[in-house]
Amino acid sequence: MKTLDVDLGERSYPIFIGAGILDRAELVSPFIRGRQVLLVSNETVAPLYMERVAPLFAGFQVQQAILPDGESYKTLDTLNSIYDVLLKSRYNRSCTLVALGGGVVGDIAGFAAASYQRGVDFVQIPTTLLAQVDSSVGGKTGVNHALGKNMIGAFHQPRCVVADTATLGTLDDRQLVAGIAEVIKYGLIRDSAFFNWLEDNVEVLVQRDSTALSYAIEQSCRNKAEVVAADERESGQRALLNLGHTFGHAIETGTGYGTWLHGEAIAVGMLLAARVSECQGWLSGEDVTRIESLLIRSGLPTKPPQNMDTGRFLDLMAVDKKAGDSGLRLVLQKGIGHAVVTDRFDSHALHRTLDVVTGAA
Amino acid sequence: MKTLDVDLGERSYPIFIGAGILDRAELVSPFIRGRQVLLVSNETVAPLYMERVAPLFAGFQVQQAILPDGESYKTLDTLNSIYDVLLKSRYNRSCTLVALGGGVVGDIAGFAAASYQRGVDFVQIPTTLLAQVDSSVGGKTGVNHALGKNMIGAFHQPRCVVADTATLGTLDDRQLVAGIAEVIKYGLIRDSAFFNWLEDNVEVLVQRDSTALSYAIEQSCRNKAEVVAADERESGQRALLNLGHTFGHAIETGTGYGTWLHGEAIAVGMLLAARVSECQGWLSGEDVTRIESLLIRSGLPTKPPQNMDTGRFLDLMAVDKKAGDSGLRLVLQKGIGHAVVTDRFDSHALHRTLDVVTGAA
Repeated sequence: MKTLDVDLGERSYPIFIGAGILDRAELVSPFIRGRQVLLVSNETVAPLYMERVAPLFAGFQVQQAILPDGESYKTLDTLNSIYDVLLKSRYNRSCTLVALGGGVVGDIAGFAAASYQRGVDFVQIPTTLLAQVDSSVGGKTGVNHALGKNMIGAFHQPRCVVADTATLGTLDDRQLVAGIAEVIKYGLIRDSAFFNWLEDNVEVLVQRDSTALSYAIEQSCRNKAEVVAADERESGQRALLNLGHTFGHAIETGTGYGTWLHGEAIAVGMLLAARVSECQGWLSGEDVTRIESLLIRSGLPTKPPQNMDTGRFLDLMAVDKKAGDSGLRLVLQKGIGHAVVTDRFDSHALHRTLDVVTGAA
Repeated sequence: MKTLDVDLGERSYPIFIGAGILDRAELVSPFIRGRQVLLVSNETVAPLYMERVAPLFAGFQVQQAILPDGESYKTLDTLNSIYDVLLKSRYNRSCTLVALGGGVVGDIAGFAAASYQRGVDFVQIPTTLLAQVDSSVGGKTGVNHALGKNMIGAFHQPRCVVADTATLGTLDDRQLVAGIAEVIKYGLIRDSAFFNWLEDNVEVLVQRDSTALSYAIEQSCRNKAEVVAADERESGQRALLNLGHTFGHAIETGTGYGTWLHGEAIAVGMLLAARVSECQGWLSGEDVTRIESLLIRSGLPTKPPQNMDTGRFLDLMAVDKKAGDSGLRLVLQKGIGHAVVTDRFDSHALHRTLDVVTGAA
């Protein structure tokens, strides 16, 4: 087992990464302060792992909130169903919420913890690759609104993260591949050596080689922990983690939440960002090809959905959180392993790129 | 005009208190960082003051969200209606929400600001006595749940507070009197000199003497600012500000939100706390009489609603945020100007007091 620390002063916490560590009580127990625990999971994950996780809290008052599965349920209504359970069971301010599942479960449970009685503890037990390498670390929590993804939420750090790599064995191929998009992201934004490693190892990664998976998760979490420690509330470099996300969120919102998986949309978004960067003269055509090739070898999509044209993209991107007063802000590439956040890009480069990829030019 | 500072490091902010300062642009302008402003008010307050407040933001993109009036609308649904306006108008992370109204408007707008895009700026322009002396200062924001008051929310400090005492001229008598309950609270918990002043001046205060009102607001805000600066997130002494609130919230929830005004419920709650304290031997009968007398002279209620019996009180109090794992925690008095937060009280004293005041004994 590896332990990584997210260094945030009094809000610091460990990420435990290992195979079969899900039910090791000594990992989680030190982080439970009160006597009441709410286990939040979904209809897919609970039947697989709840039986092993619930006994961790044998001495506690324990309730479960089992949510429907999927991004389309990441809503205020689902959030309210968690408050209902907490209040019916009279959970107090010392309670802990435990998120057992993928990114959607973690985001909703995290926001429930951030907002119940103005903030209670929570623990992340991510069971998808995407959640293990990205969403369970860093304290971004929230729900979607019909008009925009992740538009309602809070920064609220977990007390610890337990990433059991063995849970990836039950993940379907599409979910696994979607998670690889966020893994590739770390290589692209700040770690060219890791990108090189991915180019050498992506096939074994997709085949779920456990050594390769563990290495990819560790490197991803290490990169994420470093960025979050330097800029917890995204006033600066943390925005680099949004590479591909302004395009990707537009795809997710534009196709209806859940049609595309988050990682799939981000894959297309990262390639779009690379193409805009190339159009700007910031990235070589060779590098764009390397990126596209790695996405294809991973099994990720590289073309936006057919119903999205340039106008629809621009429309949906305007509301994205990355947009500032000065206009749209994007994460672009100045090389592999070197991303920048900027609103100083040629809007023609953006429009032309969107026209080309959506088939209008 | 007086300026008080709430000293919270990088989250510090000023409270401006004065008559007719509502439309002084130089007070608010320095605190607006972006170009988009959402004015949040309600159906009662907007017709009175929006015409004077809106011009403060002449150079900005401005939208309004006018909420229905009353505690019964302090819900997730109303909150969502604010997100709708923000997203339809494509407000970005640099926007500012301005709360113009009483405690309900401030609490909802503040939580909308806390949670929209994981946190944007907000400004408080409180127009009720209760909001000016209590709810607009200190960063507690949130909405109610059917099963408990203020159960969903966040700590999110405003960028500034503009308390225009002239707005109290349009407040109906019942609202004004309800606000006095929170004023009395500061005397009870930590400022016996202020309590003495209130005993000497309560009639002129109720008659809206502007000098007396200004003094009462200043002393209340000063006390609140000191407590909040020492304990922003209520891990210790800030809980003293909840004097009467565990009982009061039970009354508000038990009678249906809006039937009793918050201040009215808190008045009864403070007297109940005093009686429990007396029953414990911590407070003299004479002091209880002084408290009861001041509440009566203010025009505040001193008896709980008839539909509340001991069982119903205990039931509703169990879910209150002040409850800890060790059981119910209460704010009790060890003298006028000296409150304590404790779970070490004789539960018989609590039961007997509730039995007596609800007519069961």
